[in-house]
Formats: sequence, structure tokens, C-alpha cells
Amino acid sequence: MKNSRAEACMIYDNEKTICIDTSLPVFDLLGKRYTLFILGVIGNNNTRKNFNDIYNSIPGSNRTIIARRLKELTDAGIVKRCRKEVVTYELTEKGQDIRKGVICFLDSIDRTM
Amino acid sequence: MKNSRAEACMIYDNEKTICIDTSLPVFDLLGKRYTLFILGVIGNNNTRKNFNDIYNSIPGSNRTIIARRLKELTDAGIVKRCRKEVVTYELTEKGQDIRKGVICFLDSIDRTM
Repeated sequence: MKNSRAEACMIYDNEKTICIDTSLPVFDLLGKRYTLFILGVIGNNNTRKNFNDIYNSIPGSNRTIIARRLKELTDAGIVKRCRKEVVTYELTEKGQDIRKGVICFLDSIDRTM
Repeated sequence: MKNSRAEACMIYDNEKTICIDTSLPVFDLLGKRYTLFILGVIGNNNTRKNFNDIYNSIPGSNRTIIARRLKELTDAGIVKRCRKEVVTYELTEKGQDIRKGVICFLDSIDRTM
């Protein structure tokens, strides 16, 4: 949440007021192609996923871009990369919280469009 | 919702399954800079907004890009342009439904980041 309301984008809902810092770099990342789908599928069934699990779950996606997004999401503290015998990915606590909002957003599009 | 599950991105939540057609053009539009903020502020207080109302509500935004996004959102059937003495904008029914998901998404980022 932004402290200075003068610099924030204020959005009003029935129950709440959201105060958004529009300059947060995370918005650029979340707006990029495949990012929301990656967050969605990584959290499926609460199991760790390897690269192919993620890539194969997103039809029409591109291996190079999925790899880049996973790195960006890891750098942003949203995804955690676990390296044992194989590399797997899971959501951080922050990632799990954002995924709830992502699901709500994707569900509204699924029902509307 | 996508009919063919083979071509859809499946996301599982506790209560529901979301079946996303990742090729929907609306995802490109919703991922672009300012789009989500525009949907948020247009719906504030359920009043029609003119261009400056929208532009001034989004700190750091750019007049040219806001104008382009309003046209793209209008073309997508998410925003309605009303021309009387002055031009104003409001959300269509589809836009109001998507805004609910947008608010849920932005709120999760506001609380997390």
C-alpha cells in the first residue's frame, strides 16, 4: 500500500478502498504474457511442479518465455525455485496470496468473455 | 469458457475449476499498462467519467496511452463511450463483471507487495 495518497490510484468498492501504487514494478511483470497462467498452474493441487509440468499446462505457450517468466517471478519473490535431483517450482507465501487474486480475476474473465 | 479442455489452461482452486482459453485477445489488452487501473477508476462511485477524471486518477499515467486504452476497451465491449455535450465513459455490464475480478486482484497485490 502506498503511504502518500496523492501519488496513489484510489479505487472504491462497496466494502473497501484500494490504494494502489501504480509505479510498482510487479504490475509490469503481472501484465506480461503467461505470468497469470503460470501463477495459476504452479499452485494447482499444492504440489511442486517441474518446468515441463508448467509448460505443458499452458496451451500455445513458448518454452523460452515460460523460462524467462519463471526467473522474473523468482526474482520478485513470488515463486521459489527448489533444486534437488530435479529443479521444481512452487509459490512463496506472497505468491500464494497473489494467486488468490489472480484466480478471482481469471474467473471473472472466464465467466464474462 | 473454452469448450475443448485439451486447448485450455486448467486452474484448480478449493471451490472451483477455471478453464481458461489462453488465446483470448482480452488477455493482451488487460495485461497492458494502465488497463486495470482504468477499469478500477471508471467504476468508482458508479458515475460516468470524462477523460480528465480518468487521467487525473492514475498517477504517472500518460494522456496518449490512456486515450488509446479507452479506445481498445471500448472496441472490446468493456467500456462504453457516451457522447452528449461532453464525452464520458462508463463500464458496460461485461466491464462491471470484469472490474469485480480486477478489484480482487489489485487488492491481493495491495495487501501483499
